[in-house]
Amino acid sequence: MHLTDLQTPALVLEPHKLRANAERMRARAEALGVRLRPHMKTAKSHDIGKVAHSGVTGPITVATLNEAEYFAAHGWTDVLYAVCIAPGKLDRVAALTARGVKLTVIVDALEAAQAVAEHAGTHSAMVEIDCGEDRTGISPDDPALVAMGRVLHTAAGCTFEGVMTHGGHSYSEHEPSAMAQVAEDERAHAVRAGDALRAAGLPCSTVSVGSTPTATHARHLEGVTEMRPGVYLLGDLFQSGVGSCTSADIACTVLATVISHRRHSNRIVVDAGGLALSKDRSTAGTPFDAGYGLVLDALTGQPLGDLCVTSVHQEHGEITSRDPMPWKALPIGALVRILPNHICMTAAMYERYHLLGHGGQIDGIWTRTNGWAERPAQ
Amino acid sequence: MHLTDLQTPALVLEPHKLRANAERMRARAEALGVRLRPHMKTAKSHDIGKVAHSGVTGPITVATLNEAEYFAAHGWTDVLYAVCIAPGKLDRVAALTARGVKLTVIVDALEAAQAVAEHAGTHSAMVEIDCGEDRTGISPDDPALVAMGRVLHTAAGCTFEGVMTHGGHSYSEHEPSAMAQVAEDERAHAVRAGDALRAAGLPCSTVSVGSTPTATHARHLEGVTEMRPGVYLLGDLFQSGVGSCTSADIACTVLATVISHRRHSNRIVVDAGGLALSKDRSTAGTPFDAGYGLVLDALTGQPLGDLCVTSVHQEHGEITSRDPMPWKALPIGALVRILPNHICMTAAMYERYHLLGHGGQIDGIWTRTNGWAERPAQ
Repeated sequence: MHLTDLQTPALVLEPHKLRANAERMRARAEALGVRLRPHMKTAKSHDIGKVAHSGVTGPITVATLNEAEYFAAHGWTDVLYAVCIAPGKLDRVAALTARGVKLTVIVDALEAAQAVAEHAGTHSAMVEIDCGEDRTGISPDDPALVAMGRVLHTAAGCTFEGVMTHGGHSYSEHEPSAMAQVAEDERAHAVRAGDALRAAGLPCSTVSVGSTPTATHARHLEGVTEMRPGVYLLGDLFQSGVGSCTSADIACTVLATVISHRRHSNRIVVDAGGLALSKDRSTAGTPFDAGYGLVLDALTGQPLGDLCVTSVHQEHGEITSRDPMPWKALPIGALVRILPNHICMTAAMYERYHLLGHGGQIDGIWTRTNGWAERPAQ
Repeated sequence: MHLTDLQTPALVLEPHKLRANAERMRARAEALGVRLRPHMKTAKSHDIGKVAHSGVTGPITVATLNEAEYFAAHGWTDVLYAVCIAPGKLDRVAALTARGVKLTVIVDALEAAQAVAEHAGTHSAMVEIDCGEDRTGISPDDPALVAMGRVLHTAAGCTFEGVMTHGGHSYSEHEPSAMAQVAEDERAHAVRAGDALRAAGLPCSTVSVGSTPTATHARHLEGVTEMRPGVYLLGDLFQSGVGSCTSADIACTVLATVISHRRHSNRIVVDAGGLALSKDRSTAGTPFDAGYGLVLDALTGQPLGDLCVTSVHQEHGEITSRDPMPWKALPIGALVRILPNHICMTAAMYERYHLLGHGGQIDGIWTRTNGWAERPAQ
C-alpha cells in the first residue's frame, strides 16, 4: 500500500524519526544517570513502547487505567499510573496487580492514602509532590507527606515506593534557561521530599520526575532515580517551539485531502478539522503560532510555504497563507500532511498509525488504545 | 448497575431529555413543512438515530464515511454525506451504494463533479451552496452551479438530487432575530440555487438546509424540502447560550471523580481533562463562559453553585469557583457530572453512552462510532 491509497484523515508515523527520538532520550537518561520510564499517554501503542525501550518491554508511565490494561495485555509489567488514584478505581488496579503487573498508584491526600491502605488488594503507591505547577501534589514540606508515607508503608499488602513530581510549569516557558530552572524545581522538590521521608524513618526507593522539556534541559538529576518524558517520542510543533526537538524530528502527521478551493478568499479546505487535528491551540502565544497545524507536502514532508490550518469545523480545516495559494500544486483531491500542535490530543482521535517508508510506501500499521473503558484481560 | 458504579470519566445520557429534544424538533419540522434529516455527526449512534425518528430508521446526514458505514450496517439506507467528497473516497461510497444504501455526496467544484460523473460506481449527488458562512459551497449565482448540475445530471449512473447549504454563521450570532436572519439566508440561497437549476432545465428535487440554531429560529422554510439539525438531540452549553435549548434540556454529561483538593487556591481537581471534555471553548466570548464545562451534582443533575472546569490538562480538570469551594460535599472520590460546551467534540472521545434512569440507575449502554476508519460490511 502507498500513502496515496490511504483514506483520509489518517495518522502517519515516520519510524526512523521515532527511533531517533527514542535513541536521543535513552542517551539523555543514561547521561543523567536515571532510569527512563517513558510516559505512554502520548503514543498509547505497545509497538512504540518497544521502540522507546529498544525492542523490549520496560518501565512505563500511563495516564489512564485503560492504558495500563492495554500494556498489561501486551506483556508490560512495570507501570506507574501517574494521575492521583480515585478510590473507586482500586478494584480495577488490584485486578491488574493480581495478574502480575506492578501497577504503582499515586496519592496527594491522606484520605486517598487511607483508601489505598484499607483496600483488600495488593498495592504499590507513591506520593505526588507539587514542584511549582500547582496542578496536583503536595509540598515536600507538608507534614501530610510523612503521614501518607507512614499510612502506605505500614499497611498490610501495600508497598510504599517513594515520591514523584511533574514540572508541568515548563510548558509556560520558552527559554532553555527557564526550562532548566523548572527541571531543577522538579529535582530539588522531589529530592527534598525523599529526604523528609527518610528522616522520618520511611523508605523512598523511587524519586521520579519528568516532562519532555525538563528531561531535555535538566543540568543534572542528582538524587533522582527515574524520569518520565512522553511526548518526545512523537514530537509536535509546541515541543519544537520550546526547543525539545526540531520540526524535522516530529514523527507523526495527519494526512488530509483537499476538498474545496476558496479562490475569492485565498483559502483551501481539507477534510481534517477539529476532530482530526484536535482543537488544541498550544502554539497560540508562542513565537510561531501554527493555528491548528502546519501544512506539509504529503510525499516530501517539506513545509508548503507558510500554509497553516487557521480555522477548523468538525470535519473541515481551512488552510490560509499570507502569499498567493499554490492552487496548481493543491488541486481538489490532492494530499497534504499536517504537523500537529499537540500530538497527545491529535493522536487520541485515531485507532492506528500508518508507518511511512521510502517513496511513500506504507510499511505497516500499529494500533493504539484510546479512552477510559475497561479492557478485558487477555 | 448504578451511576456510582461507573468507572470515570464516562459519558452519561438521559434518555427522557433526548426523547423530548427529538420530539420538539420533529414537531418543528412538521410545522415548517419539511423533511427532518438529522445530522448524526453529533450522536454517532444508531440507537439515538432511532429516537430521532421515533423508533424507525429514516433519512439522516453524516459527516464521515465511517458514520455512513456504521449506519448502513445497522439498516439505514438514506444517507447524505454532507462534506465535499474527495475523489479518492468514491470507491468507498460506491461500495455502500452497491449494498443498497442511497448515499448522496456533495460537491462545490467542477473537478469534483466530473470525478463523480466519471467514476465507475452508481452515485447520487448534490451541489453545496454557500449562504454566508464561506466554509465550503458556491454562490447560487455562480455559473458553476448549473455546470456542475449538468455534469451530474447527464452522467450515466449518476442521479442529480439538487442543492444543500449550511448556515454555520449562525454560530457567531447570539440573538434570536439574528439567528432567524441566518435561517433566512439558508432558505433564500438554497431556493435561489434550486430556481437557477430549474431555469436551466435541470432537476432539483431536494433543497436542503440546516443547523440546530437556524432550525430553531427559522420563520418559515418556503421552497425548502428538508432540514439537517444535529446537535439538538443532545444539546450543550453553547446551544443553550444561543437559545436553541435550555441548560435543563442538555441530555449528555461527563461523569468525573474528584481526585485532589487544592485548598490553598480554592480548587478541586477531577479525572476529566482535555481528552474527556475536549479542548473546545465555544462558550468563550458568550455571555456565560463555562470554561471547559459546568459542574453538576452527579445524582440530582443540579448545578453546584458556579463551579466550572476552568483549566484542563490531558487527564486533569481543574474546578474553580468565585465562592468558597464546597469541600465537604465534594470529598476525594466524590462524583460530579459536567455539562459540555460542545457535545460534538466531547462525545467523540467515548465509545458508549450510559443511560441514566430513575434514582441513578444505569438502564443500559448504547454504542457510538468514532474516527474515520473503514468499517467492514455486515
